[in-house]
Amino acid sequence: MDKERLERQIRFIEEIDKEKKIGRQTYLADGSRKENDAEHAWHMAIMTFLLSEYANEDIDVLKTMTMLLIHDIVEIDAGDTYAYDENGVRTQRERELKAADRIFAILPEDQGKYFRELWEEFEEGNTPEAKFAHTMDNFQPTMLNNASGGKSWAERGVRISQILKRNSVTHEGSEVLWDYSYNNFLKPNIEAGNIKND
Amino acid sequence: MDKERLERQIRFIEEIDKEKKIGRQTYLADGSRKENDAEHAWHMAIMTFLLSEYANEDIDVLKTMTMLLIHDIVEIDAGDTYAYDENGVRTQRERELKAADRIFAILPEDQGKYFRELWEEFEEGNTPEAKFAHTMDNFQPTMLNNASGGKSWAERGVRISQILKRNSVTHEGSEVLWDYSYNNFLKPNIEAGNIKND
Repeated sequence: MDKERLERQIRFIEEIDKEKKIGRQTYLADGSRKENDAEHAWHMAIMTFLLSEYANEDIDVLKTMTMLLIHDIVEIDAGDTYAYDENGVRTQRERELKAADRIFAILPEDQGKYFRELWEEFEEGNTPEAKFAHTMDNFQPTMLNNASGGKSWAERGVRISQILKRNSVTHEGSEVLWDYSYNNFLKPNIEAGNIKND
Repeated sequence: MDKERLERQIRFIEEIDKEKKIGRQTYLADGSRKENDAEHAWHMAIMTFLLSEYANEDIDVLKTMTMLLIHDIVEIDAGDTYAYDENGVRTQRERELKAADRIFAILPEDQGKYFRELWEEFEEGNTPEAKFAHTMDNFQPTMLNNASGGKSWAERGVRISQILKRNSVTHEGSEVLWDYSYNNFLKPNIEAGNIKND
């Protein structure tokens, strides 16, 4: 057993505990509080297992789950960037690259390289797994925003044009889930006035 | 596309959002608050990916991760039972069976059956995957209790005999990780008086 290897793994595992404190803008389904990155990732990992049958292309489920479980780890240093915060979005990539350099380097080289590449693959969004991961990453908060009565949208005055722009790639992972999301989560909230119909 | 199938999957995914509100007795590494079941499961899924090389027997990583991601879902109805609450532990099985009956039945039959069997496999603890999952389920809170200065143990006056009883199967999943846990997390906290040395 390589003691240094195990110690680096444990140091990384202790480090990522901080992700439980990175808040998101999405309320829990019951509206009682907002969720954090770790809860969001847990939810999407189970969703991936259950919904992979709707992926446009065959996906490697373990790879997609792992990608989603780790894709927000960079936010430990870079913070969560709200999708509709235009200034934040501009500097996001630079802040997240610096975070990836620091955090994935804690791991033994082989595992750090794998996680780093998996994160880059998610960011680039070109493979079937990355496309489906983005579908999950958009579907999950839309589902929760609908479940909590649309209040995250209403509080921030979000417009449907912004949501459609943000969701421009959601259908690339799964046409079925994008259709479901539009018809069951977004449309009723436009009609109810929670989302501005611009 | 089977509309009823997808609706049952979405209903289940919305239902398990409640797991984010099931509190545990373990503090985050920084001691600022206690963690919840969803955060705990997220943490262990990543740990499984990184630490599976230390399993005593070869394990199916996707199966073990999925098992850990869903193993506490029954606590949505049954609540978290603190490992050292003897009355709670006595009625735990009955409460959790009732919860499993209700919650897994929300899913389409094939997926509900798979999750139910995976949960039972975890409970029985006989397969290589279930053994490693129990190693994770014991290693993770021990690691966090040590990181937060042993305060969860100290506050509740936990004795080393209780911890060793609770950890009696930890080595069955991984001798390496049990040794590491004993020497690096438990021993220093016995010496510091956070764990009663009975």
